[in-house]
Amino acid sequence: MRVLVVGASGMLGRSVVAALSPRHEVIEASRSGAVTVDLADPSSIQAMYEDVGHVDAVACTAGVVPFDDVATLSVEDFRRGITDKLLGQIALVRLGLDAVTSGGSFTLVSGVLSCDPIRTGSVAATVNGGIDSFVIAAAIELTQRINAVSATVFAEAWDSYGEYFPGFEPTPVAHVANAFVKSIDGAQTGRIYRVGY
Amino acid sequence: MRVLVVGASGMLGRSVVAALSPRHEVIEASRSGAVTVDLADPSSIQAMYEDVGHVDAVACTAGVVPFDDVATLSVEDFRRGITDKLLGQIALVRLGLDAVTSGGSFTLVSGVLSCDPIRTGSVAATVNGGIDSFVIAAAIELTQRINAVSATVFAEAWDSYGEYFPGFEPTPVAHVANAFVKSIDGAQTGRIYRVGY
Repeated sequence: MRVLVVGASGMLGRSVVAALSPRHEVIEASRSGAVTVDLADPSSIQAMYEDVGHVDAVACTAGVVPFDDVATLSVEDFRRGITDKLLGQIALVRLGLDAVTSGGSFTLVSGVLSCDPIRTGSVAATVNGGIDSFVIAAAIELTQRINAVSATVFAEAWDSYGEYFPGFEPTPVAHVANAFVKSIDGAQTGRIYRVGY
Repeated sequence: MRVLVVGASGMLGRSVVAALSPRHEVIEASRSGAVTVDLADPSSIQAMYEDVGHVDAVACTAGVVPFDDVATLSVEDFRRGITDKLLGQIALVRLGLDAVTSGGSFTLVSGVLSCDPIRTGSVAATVNGGIDSFVIAAAIELTQRINAVSATVFAEAWDSYGEYFPGFEPTPVAHVANAFVKSIDGAQTGRIYRVGY
């Protein structure tokens, strides 16, 4: 299979690339790599697909959202996070419909905060909840399969972010990457893979 | 209580106003009424709060999303629906934090399509899923209470929309309005009231 990994340079992206590379041709896209893409800019997504050509699967491990209290975040902060991780991943699907093989797959990334919130996590919650519901809805229409991976905090990021997630159990990023493998190499569609929670 | 109902001229809005009016002072806002507001424009939300002054509760029954196949919708169609019903309701909360009494409430509107999708409903699904998760997350931070009402198709709208909802059981709009009463007059927060499903 030819698999396009968007966000390939991040912690999760590198793990997904490592899990897929032994069996698949992996094309790595990120904000600043061989194949560049900015999720917040639909024209850059369009240009990426024109550059890459046909693929059998698209896996997204990218998407940036601001973290702060609701009372401190501006409406523009919400708009920014929604435009990047939510609308950006939807655009990745919409603009990829002609690029991804029928029967191939899209795998998006959401996260635990949609249903298990923390302080400062309202933009992430909003975006993750939107992604999960988009996936469930798009799955009944598309000729491609579509799933989302919704993980808890990565064990490898615990030293950086753990203090914001009191009582959460971290999970190894390789376990999260394995959910991408299930989505890409398996046959399921319309699933939200909850990893580590 | 002073209750601001946004979307007061719609089918659900009128029912919410009718349910609240016997016991509360209800201020009706809509796209074209005595108090006007356009959810897609944060400056109009700001102007509405400056016009209305302090209230004890805000109930939103507004929000417009386009319906069409994922493959037909443009990225801009998604952006438009997200900007109106999702970001618009978030802005209604964010910009209302100083206008709504501590211990007062925000009640937002989402809908069944977040978890029980129909063809052409992917924008609605995305928006509704985002609203539900925003409510759960914001509830742990705000001094006001916040809930969402997520209903199935209204019985009164069945003749217009029923064909798009095969096998769904419609519910009287008065039952949906009653969930707003529970949110406003009750004491719960962070709840998604599922009505008719």
